[in-house]
Amino acid sequence: MSKAVKNAVSPARGEDFPEWYQQVIRAADLAENSEVRGCMVIKPWGYGLWEQMQQKLDRMIKDTGHVNAYFPLLIPLSYLEKEAEHAEGFATECAVVTHHRLEAEKQDDGTTKMIPTGKLAEPYIIRPTSETIIGAAYARWVQSYRDLPILINQWANVMRWEMRPRMFLRTTEFLWQEGHTAHETKEEAIEEAEKMHEVYETFMREYLAIPVIPGEKSEAERFPGADRTLTVEAMVQDRKAIQAGTSHFLGQNFAKAAGIEFQGRDGKKEHAWTTSWGVTTRMIGTVIMAHGDDDGVVLPPRLAPQQIVILPIIPKEEHRGAVLEAAESFAAKLRDQAAWGEGLRVHIDSRDLGGGAKNWEWIKKGVPVRIEIGPRDLEKGTVAIARRDKGAQEKDFVKMEDAITQLPETLKEIQDGLLQRALEYREEHTRKIDTLEEFRAFFTAENPDKPEIHGGFALAHWGGTAEDEERLAKEMKVTIRCIPNSDELGGEPGVCFYTGNPSQRRLVFAKSY
Amino acid sequence: MSKAVKNAVSPARGEDFPEWYQQVIRAADLAENSEVRGCMVIKPWGYGLWEQMQQKLDRMIKDTGHVNAYFPLLIPLSYLEKEAEHAEGFATECAVVTHHRLEAEKQDDGTTKMIPTGKLAEPYIIRPTSETIIGAAYARWVQSYRDLPILINQWANVMRWEMRPRMFLRTTEFLWQEGHTAHETKEEAIEEAEKMHEVYETFMREYLAIPVIPGEKSEAERFPGADRTLTVEAMVQDRKAIQAGTSHFLGQNFAKAAGIEFQGRDGKKEHAWTTSWGVTTRMIGTVIMAHGDDDGVVLPPRLAPQQIVILPIIPKEEHRGAVLEAAESFAAKLRDQAAWGEGLRVHIDSRDLGGGAKNWEWIKKGVPVRIEIGPRDLEKGTVAIARRDKGAQEKDFVKMEDAITQLPETLKEIQDGLLQRALEYREEHTRKIDTLEEFRAFFTAENPDKPEIHGGFALAHWGGTAEDEERLAKEMKVTIRCIPNSDELGGEPGVCFYTGNPSQRRLVFAKSY
Repeated sequence: MSKAVKNAVSPARGEDFPEWYQQVIRAADLAENSEVRGCMVIKPWGYGLWEQMQQKLDRMIKDTGHVNAYFPLLIPLSYLEKEAEHAEGFATECAVVTHHRLEAEKQDDGTTKMIPTGKLAEPYIIRPTSETIIGAAYARWVQSYRDLPILINQWANVMRWEMRPRMFLRTTEFLWQEGHTAHETKEEAIEEAEKMHEVYETFMREYLAIPVIPGEKSEAERFPGADRTLTVEAMVQDRKAIQAGTSHFLGQNFAKAAGIEFQGRDGKKEHAWTTSWGVTTRMIGTVIMAHGDDDGVVLPPRLAPQQIVILPIIPKEEHRGAVLEAAESFAAKLRDQAAWGEGLRVHIDSRDLGGGAKNWEWIKKGVPVRIEIGPRDLEKGTVAIARRDKGAQEKDFVKMEDAITQLPETLKEIQDGLLQRALEYREEHTRKIDTLEEFRAFFTAENPDKPEIHGGFALAHWGGTAEDEERLAKEMKVTIRCIPNSDELGGEPGVCFYTGNPSQRRLVFAKSY
Repeated sequence: MSKAVKNAVSPARGEDFPEWYQQVIRAADLAENSEVRGCMVIKPWGYGLWEQMQQKLDRMIKDTGHVNAYFPLLIPLSYLEKEAEHAEGFATECAVVTHHRLEAEKQDDGTTKMIPTGKLAEPYIIRPTSETIIGAAYARWVQSYRDLPILINQWANVMRWEMRPRMFLRTTEFLWQEGHTAHETKEEAIEEAEKMHEVYETFMREYLAIPVIPGEKSEAERFPGADRTLTVEAMVQDRKAIQAGTSHFLGQNFAKAAGIEFQGRDGKKEHAWTTSWGVTTRMIGTVIMAHGDDDGVVLPPRLAPQQIVILPIIPKEEHRGAVLEAAESFAAKLRDQAAWGEGLRVHIDSRDLGGGAKNWEWIKKGVPVRIEIGPRDLEKGTVAIARRDKGAQEKDFVKMEDAITQLPETLKEIQDGLLQRALEYREEHTRKIDTLEEFRAFFTAENPDKPEIHGGFALAHWGGTAEDEERLAKEMKVTIRCIPNSDELGGEPGVCFYTGNPSQRRLVFAKSY
């Protein structure tokens, strides 16, 4: 097993985390940058991961009473103008469509130039999010309280012009689901936002193996136009926070802008109460940063596009037939086994490639289990099982029949182990902090030569204003990630470390993506 | 059951087919026009149908060795310029992105105007199809023959600026899958295009219940840049053809434009051989036009978002508990039954709405089976089963236990019946034609007062040029739909009805969408 192949992944996480992130994505063949500014190509292994996330989350979204639909990609400027009168500060970095035709113009040098023509009377933007266009539809659909609630989700691509793109975490185009619901009462809408907030927390814990902290955003960090923003915050291995999914209670703000009005039970016209909630391909970046190691990506078995890869060992051409046949029959038996109610996902890599290179390729791709089958195994009736959560050289030799019945359990162990490890990591790097001095040291001085690796999550009392938050963010690049739902992270009253004002409970502070 | 409710769907197909089409879409709540020119909102029932199509076809695409990936929405103009030098006549009606920022400008009257700023040095178009952007990626990925074949599919939205949009059949934005493959040899690429052509034919026959005619496009009707275009052509109930899915053998044309080059087995540089193939949300329009009747949409059971709807009959409030409970337990038992290897999709419509109105709503939505359960049924242990492929008033009273075991079979009968009916319709309206006079009469005179209902498909000999095809299209709006694969539609040689030239076989001529 050549060291050279392994070292295609470099540097280590502790050396240069941002560079490590880029390198493991490349080594795992998850995605690559395209020639379109800020847009990536999601390659089959990365897209396979997204498909798993989609399938599983879609089931949870449907099981909570929602249906999917599809709304236009383009949004008329007039919709945004209406919204701008109701809400401040929404995204204005977006792709603007101004023409609807190209004309080919032959140049003197024989090349062709494409000239935009057919100027539109009203330009459009490519949706950065769909509140306005979906709101316009709901305004048409809703007449009476009988038409409510509307519980719709959309899987779509969206676009926000990013100046500092980073693959999966922040790209100009990204994929997401956006739920948009409209309700008769404020209480129902709040209940809906909270329900989806819980769905996200469950999804990330059970599938992504990430112990996110569920909580509410401070006013300064809320979605523009939202009355409340609920968030789930993940800690990744440079101890920064990633906002992994948000649910917004939008009050009547968007309903007023879009004109979603209904006749209530009392015969009076009222505006609907709306919510929106979404998660994105950013979850892929979060998984990479939360679980990856110095050998590459580590995928949670519940989401891995392939859970098990079989690597046939063919020392001589004469072994090929028997080994491949054994691999096929072993794979078929594994596919008949189930973990989490689904048949195992098993791939046989029979490419004509050196065994060491192949093995390292799958390590870097983060496949949970690798199984070698060679001529000697056939004689003994065994296989060699290697787990991605153990050292790269560790192998267990197991009888084939035993492997078949044990592997579903092995996958569950790996899944649980990743969650446990991520939880321990978070707990290890989360500290209750009571003074400004300690706070500053936590976020700057722990690794003075590597400022990107700071202390982690600070649980601290806060009594400041939105302006204080802004000042803190400027000074230390630290923000309030959330007011946690649970009292376990510090529900007791205290004194704000920044202003000395009284505080009802500790909040979560961190640097973030 | 009020006649008024029923007649919300009008006119009959034979009276005004285009208007019938619009009306049944509205009555079934499948989609509606948006305020974005040529773009529709696909509502939950319509999107549910698309999800079924996606799931099933995705399985077939993967089973034939393909994987999914995702490429950028935007295409740099320079890519199109390169292509324009290699291929003539590709779509130029497309959305052009020229700016990346909006600035809000407060007006004197207190309103806000959004002004596009941040002009892009190089504009982008929104993909009308992705050959160029995917080709650019493949050019990066392919170095050697060992990197081939690349077998990738993408599910995506695309946009072509449509001047005469029609819901599902021709919209500015639509959803589709586009397969893009690259191969070492010409033979492999042709085999791939033919394989996917067969997948489409199978998918439409088995799932859409539409007996499409598979064949090849004439030169004039080929995709620009393709060496061969294979098509599946459906006949719908105004006897026009719908091109329901195409597979293109692109030769080395796109590989040359994009620079997809590899070192061959002989060490020499060669251009790859590529294919592309796709089907779109147009399939939904095809299903509506192929199977709908004067009562509304009729959905094939294999694709219906719900296959069975249960309508609880609650004459008095005191019956509610018992009836709903029986409906729930009946639904649960049905969901445990399977048709085509999948659990039945069953919905209970317990909305507080008159039984007649509710029943007609589901007829118009085209749900394959409606089942009423009321207090009298509970006494007798029966349910009333109505099939969408029978008269709206026809009901069978069946013992509950029998219904549970029979319903999978009933769904299959409905599915087979739709296919059979569509096949008979096509055969009835397909005619071998040998003279220009007869040809002209077939396409114009059969319904002189309703020119949109003409004869159907003509099987005729052809020996004309591309210019002759164009002249025929201008004169009668009739085109060569395909050179059918099968000899059954007229494999014998003959004489062209238009030019008198000799012909090797009959082709399929029709008016089309």
